Amino acid sequence: MRILGIDPGYAILGYGVVDMQANHFTPVAYGALTTQANQEMPLRLGALHQQLTELIELYKPQVVAIEELFFNKNAKTAIMVAQARGAAIVACVSRGLPIFEYTPLQIKQALVGYGRADKNQVQQMTKYILHLDEIPRPDDAADGLAVALCHGNFSGGGKKPTFREGI
Amino acid sequence: MRILGIDPGYAILGYGVVDMQANHFTPVAYGALTTQANQEMPLRLGALHQQLTELIELYKPQVVAIEELFFNKNAKTAIMVAQARGAAIVACVSRGLPIFEYTPLQIKQALVGYGRADKNQVQQMTKYILHLDEIPRPDDAADGLAVALCHGNFSGGGKKPTFREGI
Repeated sequence: MRILGIDPGYAILGYGVVDMQANHFTPVAYGALTTQANQEMPLRLGALHQQLTELIELYKPQVVAIEELFFNKNAKTAIMVAQARGAAIVACVSRGLPIFEYTPLQIKQALVGYGRADKNQVQQMTKYILHLDEIPRPDDAADGLAVALCHGNFSGGGKKPTFREGI
Repeated sequence: MRILGIDPGYAILGYGVVDMQANHFTPVAYGALTTQANQEMPLRLGALHQQLTELIELYKPQVVAIEELFFNKNAKTAIMVAQARGAAIVACVSRGLPIFEYTPLQIKQALVGYGRADKNQVQQMTKYILHLDEIPRPDDAADGLAVALCHGNFSGGGKKPTFREGI
């Protein structure tokens, strides 16, 4: 199963594509889609949608996992990220892809084993599970991979994933 | 110039299509796109995007006007509406349509002449300008028409529109 993980954002949208076979994960691609700060918001949303559509056509994921929004104290930022999340979701739905949503808590739980894990712990586990030499950069790409791995874990029937053995 | 006005929402998205010639407005179509409450949010966003794309193909507007979000006290609702707004915007941008954003204040100012006008005053003006027999229903459709008329007003070079003469 090929999973596309998305960490939504309007300036930077992180993504990670992983292949899952049994409980083994292989990284396919990861990175960040960006938009220009000097562009008007509708054009930035359009650019994200377009880039994500191209990414889907290129890597042909079978399922999408996307991070739920954290209810930020800054309502303006939350609304801008939510708009970008809506733009990203329709790019996936338009391609007929099933989408699963995970909270930051669920992602931490899935990767590290407890919901109050810090960002670095999640990134270290992402690196370990995918046998990467370095923590993926930028952070948004690491977050995209993490939500993809989270889905792989949750979709595995709830059993303890092999990637946590020996940690 | 044919203007599509959008009042964003995830359960009900109001729209209004008007033709503007000089400072005269003719209604073309108005109504509401709806989504099913029992569907998951990604599918509802996908359905909105799909319906709006079909609407654009049917009526072929040349420009889109969309209402800005009011920063609601309910962050969860604001985020859900913002996602729908993002989905709607990319449906327009994907078709190459220019989009203009207007605050509720600007819409009231454009139609009624002052920013603290109530909903009924805006609806009465919408009915009057478009020579309709009744106030458009549902409210969302009236709001869609109002933002379209607002754009017509603002795009007319800032001069006082004829539709306010004699009021």
